[in-house]
Amino acid sequence: MASSSAETAEQLRRRVQELEQELAQERSRQAPGGSAGGGRARVDKMSPEVVDSNPYSRLMALKRMGIVKDYEKIRTFAVAVIGVGGVGSVTAEMLTRCGIGKLLLFDYDKVELANMNRLFFQPHQAGLSKVQAAEHTLRNINPDVHFEVYNYNITTVDNFQHFMDRISNGGLESGKPVDLVLSCVDNFEARMAINTACNELGQTWMESGVSENAVSGHIQLIIPGESACFACAPPLVVAENIDEKTLKREGVCAASLPTTMGVVAGILVQNVLKFLLNFGTVSFYLGYNAMQDFFPTMSMKPNPQCEDRNCRKQQEEYKKKIAALPKQEVVEQEEEEILHEDNDWGIELVSEISEEELKDASGPVPDLPEGITVAYTVPRKAEDALPGGESVEDSGESLEELMAKMKNM
Amino acid sequence: MASSSAETAEQLRRRVQELEQELAQERSRQAPGGSAGGGRARVDKMSPEVVDSNPYSRLMALKRMGIVKDYEKIRTFAVAVIGVGGVGSVTAEMLTRCGIGKLLLFDYDKVELANMNRLFFQPHQAGLSKVQAAEHTLRNINPDVHFEVYNYNITTVDNFQHFMDRISNGGLESGKPVDLVLSCVDNFEARMAINTACNELGQTWMESGVSENAVSGHIQLIIPGESACFACAPPLVVAENIDEKTLKREGVCAASLPTTMGVVAGILVQNVLKFLLNFGTVSFYLGYNAMQDFFPTMSMKPNPQCEDRNCRKQQEEYKKKIAALPKQEVVEQEEEEILHEDNDWGIELVSEISEEELKDASGPVPDLPEGITVAYTVPRKAEDALPGGESVEDSGESLEELMAKMKNM
Repeated sequence: MASSSAETAEQLRRRVQELEQELAQERSRQAPGGSAGGGRARVDKMSPEVVDSNPYSRLMALKRMGIVKDYEKIRTFAVAVIGVGGVGSVTAEMLTRCGIGKLLLFDYDKVELANMNRLFFQPHQAGLSKVQAAEHTLRNINPDVHFEVYNYNITTVDNFQHFMDRISNGGLESGKPVDLVLSCVDNFEARMAINTACNELGQTWMESGVSENAVSGHIQLIIPGESACFACAPPLVVAENIDEKTLKREGVCAASLPTTMGVVAGILVQNVLKFLLNFGTVSFYLGYNAMQDFFPTMSMKPNPQCEDRNCRKQQEEYKKKIAALPKQEVVEQEEEEILHEDNDWGIELVSEISEEELKDASGPVPDLPEGITVAYTVPRKAEDALPGGESVEDSGESLEELMAKMKNM
Repeated sequence: MASSSAETAEQLRRRVQELEQELAQERSRQAPGGSAGGGRARVDKMSPEVVDSNPYSRLMALKRMGIVKDYEKIRTFAVAVIGVGGVGSVTAEMLTRCGIGKLLLFDYDKVELANMNRLFFQPHQAGLSKVQAAEHTLRNINPDVHFEVYNYNITTVDNFQHFMDRISNGGLESGKPVDLVLSCVDNFEARMAINTACNELGQTWMESGVSENAVSGHIQLIIPGESACFACAPPLVVAENIDEKTLKREGVCAASLPTTMGVVAGILVQNVLKFLLNFGTVSFYLGYNAMQDFFPTMSMKPNPQCEDRNCRKQQEEYKKKIAALPKQEVVEQEEEEILHEDNDWGIELVSEISEEELKDASGPVPDLPEGITVAYTVPRKAEDALPGGESVEDSGESLEELMAKMKNM
C-alpha cells in the first residue's frame, strides 16, 4: 500500500518502523549467515515424542524399530565434507536433517545456473560461494547443527595446513579431531590431498565419485592402515559396459544427473550413519552402475609398498594393534574381512581394461570382482620410466591422455 | 536503522516507498505461488552451450557422452507423481531439475516439522499443503516446467474420477494422457487405487516404497498386461535379514531416513529417465537393503487369474499385440524377458516368510530371487474363505493383523 500525503509524520514514522521490522524478518529467512528467522526454534534434547512439531520423531523411531540403539549419539559427532557440489551438498543436507552435531564444509566454488541440474542449490543463490549458500540453507533447515565453513581450495600449501588443523582440532569439542572426513570432490588432486592428510593424521574417511558421463559412481571407506588408501592402487571405478564406439570423451563439460548424484550421496550418508551409529554392515567399496542397475561391492587391503610413507606407517601400527588383541578378537576380525572380500555377486560385466592390460601393469592390481575396474593402469616397473621422470603405461594412451583422465575423475 | 524524529514528512514518505519496494522484492522470492522473482528466466530451447549461465549444459552433455541420443525430448513428457512425501518430493525435484515437460502432483497432506528428517521441505513451509509448497519451490528452481497440482486424496470416489481424468487428459498436449504415473504413496489403499486406474487406462506406471523401519525400499515398473500388476500377487518387499527378536513393530510412528528415501527417489527417477529417453536397462523390480548394501532385482509376469478384470483384459491385449508382431521381434521380446527373469545374483539372505509358508499359500507365489520376499501370503483357496467373505491365511496371523500390516505398507 502506498503512503498517502494525508498521513501525519507520526503515522509515517510508525509505518517505517513496521516495514523495517517486516523486512528484517523476511531477510533473516534468506540472508546468508542469517538467523533461523523463517525456520524452527532450536531443540535442546532429541525427543521420541510422536507429534507433528517434533523434527526428530521419525529418526528416534529407529530405536523403537530396533535398528539403532542410541540415535541421540548422532549429536556428538563432527563430520567434514570436502566439496559442496552435486554429491557434497546433498550429503551435507542429509546429515543436517539427521541432526549431526557439527558439519565442516570446504569448497572454493561459486553457485552457477549450470549447477541447477543437481539437487540443493537454487537459482537465486547463483553468484554466492557454495559454502556460504549451503550454510545459510542448512542452518535454516536445522539450527541445532554447528557449522564451520571454509571458502578455499584445500590443495594450496597454506590452505592445506589450515585444513589439516581443522581435521585435527575441529571436532565438536574444540581441540578434538573430527569423527569422519567425506571426500565429495570432483578431481584427482583434491582426493590426493585428502588422502595425504588422512594418512598423516590416521583419520578415517570416505571417498565418493561420479563418472564424467553421469551414469556411474561409487563410495569407498578408507581406514588408514586397515584398508587400501587412495595411493595404494589405481582408483577403482565401476565398469560401465558401454559400447566403446559410442563413448565420446572429448569436450570439457562433464555430464551430470541429479539421480546418480542423489543415489551416491544417499549410499554415502547411509554408510556414514551405519559407521557412526553402529548398525548394519558398512561397505568398504560400493559401486553404482546406473545403466544396468547393479551395485558391485568389494574391499581391498592396503599396499605394503604404498608410495605414501604415512600409509605404510599406519599399516605397521594397525598390525601392532591387531597383534595386541586377544586371540578371540583377531579371529573375528579376520572372518569379517573374509566376508567382505568374498562378496562377488556373479554379475557378468566386461571390464573396460582387458585382463592382459591388467597383467601388464605393475603395482598391486587387486583381485577385482566383476563390475569393478581400475581408472587407469600404472607403469610395469620403475625402470620403464622415461628419462626425466615421466612414465608411460601400456594401454596405448599417451601420458597427456592419462593425466587428462585423472584430472577429470 | 530507526527513523529519527528530525526527518521531514517528505523524507519519511520516500523511506516508506523504498521499504515497501524492498519488502515486495523479498517476498516475491518466497511467497507461495509467487513469480520466479528470485529464480531464473525461462529458457525457450535447451542448449548444449557450455557456459555457467546455462542450466541445461550438464544434461545436454549426456548426448556428447553418447549416453542419451535426444535429451531435449525430456521436454515433451508429462509425469504424474502421487504422494509428495519423502520419496515423491525428491522425485519431483529431480524431474524438475532434469527439465521434464510437465509434472502433475497429487497429495492431501500438510508439511509438518516432523517431515524435516527427509529432503526437500523446509521448516518455514510447515502448515502449507505439500503440493502448494512443492509447486512454489519447484517453479522457482525451474520455471520451464509446467505444473498441475491437486490437494486431495485420490482414493475417495469423486477424487478418483477426477484423478483418472487427469491421467487420461493431463498430458503436455491437453487431452492426451500423461506419459508415466509414479506412485510415491505410503499406504496400501492408495497403491491399489493407482493400480486400478492404470489397469483400466492401460497406463504404464512405477511404484516405489520404503519400509516402516526405514532401512529398505524398492521400485517396480508395471506395464499393464506385460508385467505383474499390484493385484497380481502379494506386494514384493526386500528381505532384511534383521534378527526378528529385535524387530519391534508396535507403535504408530514409522521411522524414516533421508538417505533411504533419497536412494529410492534416485533409482526411481533414473529408471524414469531410462524409460522415457530410451537408454540403459529399465529395471522391472529393484530393491535396496540398506543394512547390507545389496540391491536385488527381478521381473514378474502378470497373473492370468488376477482379481482385477482390467488387468486380465490388458493381458489379453498384450498377447494379441505380441502375436501380431513379426516373428523376429517376438524372439527378441522373449529373450529380453528371460534376461530379466534370470537375474539372480546369488545373494544369500533368509526370506522373512519361510519356504513352507510360501508353499502353503495359494495364488501365484513367484519364483523369487534371494533377497526379495512377499509382504504377506494369500489364502490357499477361495473355498477356505470364511462365511461372509472373510478369509484367513495360514501364517498364523489374524486377518486384523494382516490388514494392519497392509495398511502400514
